[in-house]
Amino acid sequence: MSRVINFSAGPSTIPLSVLEHAKAEFTDYKGHGYSIIEISHRTKIFEEVLHSAMARVKRLYGFGENFKILFLQGGGSLQFAQVPMNLMTKTGYAEYANTGNWTNKAIKEAEILGINHRVIASSKESKFDHIPEVKFSDDADYGYICSNNTIYGTQYKTLPKCKCPLVVDSSSDLFSRPVDISSVGLFYGGIQKNGGPAGVTMVAIREDLLDRADDTSTPMILRYKTQANADSMYNTPNTFGIYMLDLMLEWIENEIGGLAKMAERNEQKTAILYEAIDASGGFYTGHARADSRSLMNISFNIASGAEVEAKFIDEASKAGMIGLKGHRVLGGIRASLYNAITAQNVKTLVEFMNEFARKNG
Amino acid sequence: MSRVINFSAGPSTIPLSVLEHAKAEFTDYKGHGYSIIEISHRTKIFEEVLHSAMARVKRLYGFGENFKILFLQGGGSLQFAQVPMNLMTKTGYAEYANTGNWTNKAIKEAEILGINHRVIASSKESKFDHIPEVKFSDDADYGYICSNNTIYGTQYKTLPKCKCPLVVDSSSDLFSRPVDISSVGLFYGGIQKNGGPAGVTMVAIREDLLDRADDTSTPMILRYKTQANADSMYNTPNTFGIYMLDLMLEWIENEIGGLAKMAERNEQKTAILYEAIDASGGFYTGHARADSRSLMNISFNIASGAEVEAKFIDEASKAGMIGLKGHRVLGGIRASLYNAITAQNVKTLVEFMNEFARKNG
Repeated sequence: MSRVINFSAGPSTIPLSVLEHAKAEFTDYKGHGYSIIEISHRTKIFEEVLHSAMARVKRLYGFGENFKILFLQGGGSLQFAQVPMNLMTKTGYAEYANTGNWTNKAIKEAEILGINHRVIASSKESKFDHIPEVKFSDDADYGYICSNNTIYGTQYKTLPKCKCPLVVDSSSDLFSRPVDISSVGLFYGGIQKNGGPAGVTMVAIREDLLDRADDTSTPMILRYKTQANADSMYNTPNTFGIYMLDLMLEWIENEIGGLAKMAERNEQKTAILYEAIDASGGFYTGHARADSRSLMNISFNIASGAEVEAKFIDEASKAGMIGLKGHRVLGGIRASLYNAITAQNVKTLVEFMNEFARKNG
Repeated sequence: MSRVINFSAGPSTIPLSVLEHAKAEFTDYKGHGYSIIEISHRTKIFEEVLHSAMARVKRLYGFGENFKILFLQGGGSLQFAQVPMNLMTKTGYAEYANTGNWTNKAIKEAEILGINHRVIASSKESKFDHIPEVKFSDDADYGYICSNNTIYGTQYKTLPKCKCPLVVDSSSDLFSRPVDISSVGLFYGGIQKNGGPAGVTMVAIREDLLDRADDTSTPMILRYKTQANADSMYNTPNTFGIYMLDLMLEWIENEIGGLAKMAERNEQKTAILYEAIDASGGFYTGHARADSRSLMNISFNIASGAEVEAKFIDEASKAGMIGLKGHRVLGGIRASLYNAITAQNVKTLVEFMNEFARKNG
């Protein structure tokens, strides 16, 4: 087996050591005579995995006693609807910062649900190439951001401070760096980029926000409180996904050394790629403004056009590097440098890029 | 490794050959140099798996061109809300048959959503020990049933015929037998009992029902049409769960020989266990009425009481048979004989039961 380098925007690469761990015990979990994938969620064995993963999330981010960790299904896209369904008060209003495709979709769901909301910042006019200044009103029901924008390759350097509860869609930079959670009311992300496979949504919610949902109209299954009260087992959770998440978080805690170390590693990786783009003499051009560059997704173009970009993607694939095609909204090339990508992986890409520029420049 | 026999109500046992197949290619899918669990859903490789699983569902049940197969998240519990959100017309009404815990929950969500509905049949008065006669009105927006009741061990022998669209929650007897789909408008089930791991909900929906949802108030992510138009990839699906489902359906098609053969096998298995209960001279007593006995879940008690039942469960566990504890609502013992349980597994259980009755009778 020759392992490819997978720069996909998600689902995305998982450390080989984590995959091998899961593989080794796939048919016999810790000598119990069954696979973790086929065991009831109502067993001590699975509850240990569940609580281990919840505790790791709390330790990594520093979420205190006043936060509940939930493992839900439905991805970020269901959160776009669940957030307003659960956090709106009867007379209040919500505020959104629009930084790309995912906040657009969140705003769309708020519109459909008919909630009182405003977009207080946007970088739409400049094709979402930067993170605008964001200042939420003190008395908003919540202020909503997406901390990293996969398509446009932009990221908040730090989370905004505000008096209203801050809601953060961290799907594409989850578990990639420490964040200041002092304003956070709800912090969520699909885990399929930095935390394992698709099918689990991590939600950290401040307990005082659990009581806002209107019990007379919000379906039981869509209330955060339902799952908070049931330890995320109101119904059957994605047991294998949570098991894989726990292995990934163990890797981040024990192999990497926590989120500060993870961020350091991610910064080093990204610097290698941005330097190559900046040093290419205009052959490669990055999309994001320098002050808003993401540590996760680097979207760039080749100045000579789409045909050369297609050739780049094709030749990279033949050289064992996949997932480099940009999102259809922006075109071009995108390299996603999630947690499991190594500095050596990025160096291999940069060597290929330099060689390609030399041949096609 | 000594493999246990897992009689759990779900998630539940998966054939060892399927687990071994998944294990063998867990770190290198078909020589591509990556795991199927880490590959983007927007790849030809994953789309092949997705379309293979969809085609198998259609072939197994005989769903025609006018049905769309969706793979969603959120389990049956989200369907309890999604069904009325999508299938109610503005002036119509829905009808429910109440046969236990799961229909209770579905009716509860209909109440919370404030839809016009009636319960037209129920076996609540006799502790849900049988399937009542069910006759839905011709002009109902839909008639709703749960085809198999895990807790009480009852099952519809055949699906009701009706002129309104029949909605079937088949979570606990999915892929276990052929069914007459002539009245079916929507057929769904979490796959975690007979079709693989937790975290995927299969929905088969008649295309003419896709247009009922009110676009001005139903969140995008909760409309069936959104996922039907996007081939179940409006957002990232549970890719690994769908891969495991495809392997399970391949096993049902190629190893077992389809749903008729699957049903034959399930009938043989269940007969062995019911015969043992009936021949125990009153030591074991089944919960379900004989005309409503499930082919999937057999709930029974030991006449001498809860203490002896606890001893049974403990000793069975020591003998390598797990998951036999009854649901807390009913207590006692429950053996779930899902697709992956073999006749030999049931014989092993029956031998244990006979021996236990002899010693404790």
